[in-house]
Formats: sequence, structure tokens, C-alpha cells
Amino acid sequence: MDPFSFDLLATDGRARRGVFNTPHGPLDTPVFAPVGTQASVKAVTPKELEELGASLVLANTYHLMLRPGDELIANLGGLHTFMGWDGPILTDSGGFQLFSLGDLRRVDNDGVTFRSHIDGSEHRLTPGKAVAIQENLGADIIMVLDECADPNDQAYITTALDRTHRWAEQCLAAQTRTDQALFGIVQGGINPELRQKSCEYLVKLGFPGYAIGGLSVGETKEEMYATLDIVDLHLPQYKPRYLMGVGTPEDLVEGVARGVDIFDCVLPTRVARHGAALLIQPGREATRNGQLNLRNAIHAGDPRPIDQECTCYTCSHFSRAYIRHLVKANEILAHQLLSIHNLHVLIDLARQMREAIANREFQTFRRAFWAARNGAHLDLAEE
Amino acid sequence: MDPFSFDLLATDGRARRGVFNTPHGPLDTPVFAPVGTQASVKAVTPKELEELGASLVLANTYHLMLRPGDELIANLGGLHTFMGWDGPILTDSGGFQLFSLGDLRRVDNDGVTFRSHIDGSEHRLTPGKAVAIQENLGADIIMVLDECADPNDQAYITTALDRTHRWAEQCLAAQTRTDQALFGIVQGGINPELRQKSCEYLVKLGFPGYAIGGLSVGETKEEMYATLDIVDLHLPQYKPRYLMGVGTPEDLVEGVARGVDIFDCVLPTRVARHGAALLIQPGREATRNGQLNLRNAIHAGDPRPIDQECTCYTCSHFSRAYIRHLVKANEILAHQLLSIHNLHVLIDLARQMREAIANREFQTFRRAFWAARNGAHLDLAEE
Repeated sequence: MDPFSFDLLATDGRARRGVFNTPHGPLDTPVFAPVGTQASVKAVTPKELEELGASLVLANTYHLMLRPGDELIANLGGLHTFMGWDGPILTDSGGFQLFSLGDLRRVDNDGVTFRSHIDGSEHRLTPGKAVAIQENLGADIIMVLDECADPNDQAYITTALDRTHRWAEQCLAAQTRTDQALFGIVQGGINPELRQKSCEYLVKLGFPGYAIGGLSVGETKEEMYATLDIVDLHLPQYKPRYLMGVGTPEDLVEGVARGVDIFDCVLPTRVARHGAALLIQPGREATRNGQLNLRNAIHAGDPRPIDQECTCYTCSHFSRAYIRHLVKANEILAHQLLSIHNLHVLIDLARQMREAIANREFQTFRRAFWAARNGAHLDLAEE
Repeated sequence: MDPFSFDLLATDGRARRGVFNTPHGPLDTPVFAPVGTQASVKAVTPKELEELGASLVLANTYHLMLRPGDELIANLGGLHTFMGWDGPILTDSGGFQLFSLGDLRRVDNDGVTFRSHIDGSEHRLTPGKAVAIQENLGADIIMVLDECADPNDQAYITTALDRTHRWAEQCLAAQTRTDQALFGIVQGGINPELRQKSCEYLVKLGFPGYAIGGLSVGETKEEMYATLDIVDLHLPQYKPRYLMGVGTPEDLVEGVARGVDIFDCVLPTRVARHGAALLIQPGREATRNGQLNLRNAIHAGDPRPIDQECTCYTCSHFSRAYIRHLVKANEILAHQLLSIHNLHVLIDLARQMREAIANREFQTFRRAFWAARNGAHLDLAEE
């Protein structure tokens, strides 16, 4: 039996309700994965993650290889034991962070040489090393090393894509563990031909799942959605698709509408650290970007929760006035309560979409979602 | 019926096992109260506090009157609703913080004028105002305004004590709510005559409970314990005694041995923020001050929990290696996990002492406690 089978339980349009089987349990999709960059989802305990209904958690290879080191984590029994998370874990390859380092890295055909942002020490990541490190970390889903190119630099994108494809092949060859699903990463910027080529190349290599990289890096929403449309056409139906680093409520809904199964994003915890709350129905509030800024004086005496219809711990127990006080007083509890709420918004949105797809009501759900968001992007949302 | 009756269930030597009845439920004593300076116990949710077995929580009048303001909290239904804590709450009078402000305050016979540490604005606190603010905050146990004098300045201590006594009388007269227990505060530094005088003065006024102020401010352990011995002699048996701001494991045990019922201290959460863990049996470890510094490299690969015998969430789920990584990587979760452990140590120590007193085994418990602490202070611990 395939240890990483993906069962499609239901579809509605191109939206998919599936189950991806991993050594740490089945993963119901569509799913939103909280990000634990340094093996900790910021300001949230694993117990709280469990209570939030989180299933898949992401950790970053780049950060963990530098601190505390992947061998140390391996010696301690791997990431699951280390961070106290017994459910599925996904690690990226480190590629995305490397290509964000700017002057601190140098790429060649065989890999990337870079300096640590922590102590300036020099390191090198190759496809083989990216796999070896992720085998040390021991996540259920791991990623090939890829190169994230500027989506507007056509020449660079073509070169980077060829390199990404060779690296994908080398990663496959380097894999020694059979209990980790190694995903290929589709690149190609916003160029439809390159995206098609990337899908075809990787599918020929044959991966248990496919990630879609290089999006949400500056392109417009229209470009992102058009790219997802292309990728959806050229990836196999019976393998999971993971849209990397994407996680606004809008992008979750539109991604699912275009056949995406897995999402991750630092957005909910980052927004929380900035003192703001994600709203699923921002139409009812005066907000910017669908977020409620708890720093604003307007909340000072407001006894209402962030969202009266939200069922999270924060909204069941605390007022906007209290959370605003915590934000203004620099209390850590502000991060905790806002992170819990923001994670709930995305985890629960994924849950609602799973239910809607299973009931063949996803298009109705999607229309209601956009209507509640003040009608913004409504044209785009209609297929 | 007295709304604030104190039932002595058992005694063992001078140690007392009691129940203090408050509008938010009975309080089992001896008890350790976590401190929520700004209406939040730092890095711990109320749900976690409940799971830790916390019963009484403290909040600081000085901080809350300045931000977010006591009237705002009153309008939102008081501290219990505001901070989501349905158990008993205690507020101090603001006195201790005022007298720590140094150049920022000026004291006269009628009160204290001071500048806010937040924005420099000028404020005034009088006995009447301290009560009015605490009535707005709405805690179950509130404190008279007192003056904390340098324990070594004999002349100042005498003046300050007279003022403290007059203020205590004025606070009693100013009280309008009947659902709050206003505690008198015994002062007098480490001078036995002044402490006796203070007890007698306050007991004559008649309070539902008595706080012991002005300790743990620089005097030796011997001086502190000797002062507790004096106070114990001159306070009524059937009223609770609260030792303000004291909270090392040693002081809890020695305080209980001298008839103290209630303790509070920022120690557990402050130590947590410095990356260290309290140990109940430091004799088994190489530590300083009975604390384990998780920053130390020695913990980097250690799969053991902080304390193998500890039953807290942190020790049941996470290794020293992981917590050290969180501390080094500046993850908020380090504060959370260490705060949970440190609070558990003191809350559970109080629980163990309640059990020991009820079973008339407190002296045995106390000897075992000191033996586990490497024999330090053992002579002092013997009566």
C-alpha cells in the first residue's frame, strides 16, 4: 500500500475534499498549516494548536539547520518529539529563505552558499544536503530544494527553472527515508508556458505531492489566480497540491476553488504580533485589509469580542477593550490571544470549506464568503 | 453571616490550613497568588492559570489606575470580567509601587503626589482615593494605602508607621462597598516593638484580614523570619494573614511555618522571562539560587524535562533541549512554558503544604523540603 495515498472523498467544481495519509495520521484537506519557523508556532502552545483543530504544522529548514541544528534535533528523536507535536509536520527546503537573504548568498548550478543571519558563518545547501537535513528533522512532508526567482525577470526565471528541475531530480535521488513524502515544487513565475513545462517535468519524475512555489511574491491577485488555473490543468488529480506561503482568507478560498489542498502562512501569527485581528466578515467593520487594528482608541471601552460569531477561546472570553489594553501595555498575552483568534479564522475556514465541498455546496459558500467581504473582488471570484 | 469568614480547618504547630470565603468562591489557604500586574499574569492565559490550580490572582492598582484606568474597568464590569478571571482577585493599594518611584513622588501627611512612569502626567493618591479606585476595580480583597519605609531608617520608619496607621483608619472610613475585604497592612520594618505596635493598632481598628508589608525589601532571612514570629503573636488567629510580595519556595515554607496564609510574588513569571526555571529540589542539580538557567549550553542536547518528578504541562511534554532552543531563539513560547512550570512549583508547593497541615505532617514536610534543598538554611528551619 502507498504510505502516502491521497484519497479524494469529494469534489465540487475544481475544489477537492481529500485525505492525505502520513505516518503521523491522516490529513484532512483542504487544510491550513500554522507556521512554526523555529519549531514553535509563535506564542501558541502545542496544546492550544490541538484545541484549535490544527493538523499539519510547518517548520523551516533554513532556521532549524542553523539553530539548534538538524543533527541535534535528530539525536533528540526528530522534530515531532522535539517540538511536542505528534501530528503531521511539513518542512520546507530552506530555498525560500535563502533567496530572501540577498547579499548574503551566492547561487551556482550545484547549490547555494550563504552566510547565517545569526552569526555570519558560511554554509552551503545543495539538493542532497537539503534532503539529508530534512531527513534529520524527520517531518512527514519534505520539499525539494528550489530557486525562487523574481517573477518579472523572464531570463532569470528560465535559468532558475532549469536549475530547479535538475535539483528536484537530485533530491529524489538523494532520498533515503521511505517514511517522508518528498514534494516537487512547480516554479515558472507567472508565465503560463513555463508553469506548464514545470508541471510536466516534475510529474514525469513522479512525486507523492506537488508544491506550487513562487507565488504571493509581488504579482497581482489576477496573475496568481491565473497561474493556479494553469497549474491545476497540468498536475495529476490524485496527488495533493500545496500552495506555499499563501494564507489570506481570500487566497484560501480562491486557492481551494482552483484545486489547492494545502496552505501555510505566517500571516495569522505575524498580524497578531502587530496587534491586529483577522476578520472573516470584515464587511461588518471599518477595517483595512480585512483586519481589526486593536491599537485603535475606538476599541478602548468596547465590551464586544473581536467577532461575536467566532467560537475561538479569545472571542469566547475577552473583550476588544481588554485585548487593546494588553496590546498597549505590551503584554505577551496580547500575542497569545490574537494568535489564537487569527489561527482559528484560517483553520476554521479550511474546515468550513471541507464541509462545503463534501456537501457539494462550495460555490454557495464561496459566494457568501465574498459577499461578507464587502463585495471586493467579487467579479474575480465568479468562475 | 460574615461574608469574609475565615475557617481554620486544621493547624500544625503555627502552620494553618484554612478557608477564606470571598464573593468569588472559597479560597483554600495557604495559597500562592500569581501576579497579574497589568491585569494579565505575564505569558499565561486564564485557562492555563485554572489548569495550574491557581485560585487567587493579584493585580496592581498603581498600574491599572494609569492604564487603562479604573473607571474604564468599572464600566466594563470590573476586573473579573475585564481579565476573564472568575475566581478571587486581590488588588494592592498602589503604595508599594509609589514608594519605588523615587524622584517621581512626593509624600505628605494626606497622601502621595506622583508622576506616571508611562507619560509623566501628575497624579495623586490618598487613602480615600486608593479605596475608591479599588472599588472601581472590584477585587475581592483590597488593601489600605500604606507607606513602605527603608527598614534601616529608624526615624523614617516611625513617622511612616504613624502615617500608615492614620491612612488605614481613613481607608476603613472611605469604604462604601460591602463585598470587598479591606485588609490592614502591618508595617514597622524589622523593629519588634514597632511591629507589635502596628499589629495592635490595626487589630483595634478591626479588619477582615491583615497584610504584612515591608518585608523582602533588603533585610536578611533571619530578620524577616524573626519579624514574622512577632507578627504571628499579635495578629488574631481567626483572620487571614497575607505576606506581601514574598514568594521563593523557602519563604513560602518558612512563612507558613510562622502562620502566614497568603503569598504573592512576581518571581515565577519574572524568572521565566529570564530563561530560568524554579526547582523544588535543587539539591539534585548544579544551580544558583535554586534555579536552572536554561540558557546554559549544558542543556543543549538534554532530552530530560526540567524536573522529572514535576507534573506540569511543560515537564510532561518538553525537554530542556527544546526549552533552551526556545530561549536562545527568543521564542515567546519559552516565556509561556517556563512561566507555567514556575507557577506550578509555587502553586503546588502551597497545595502540598495544605495537605501536610491537614494531615498534621507539616513539620515532616518542612524537614524534607529543606533536606532536598541541599541542607541550606537547615538550622534556621528547625524551630
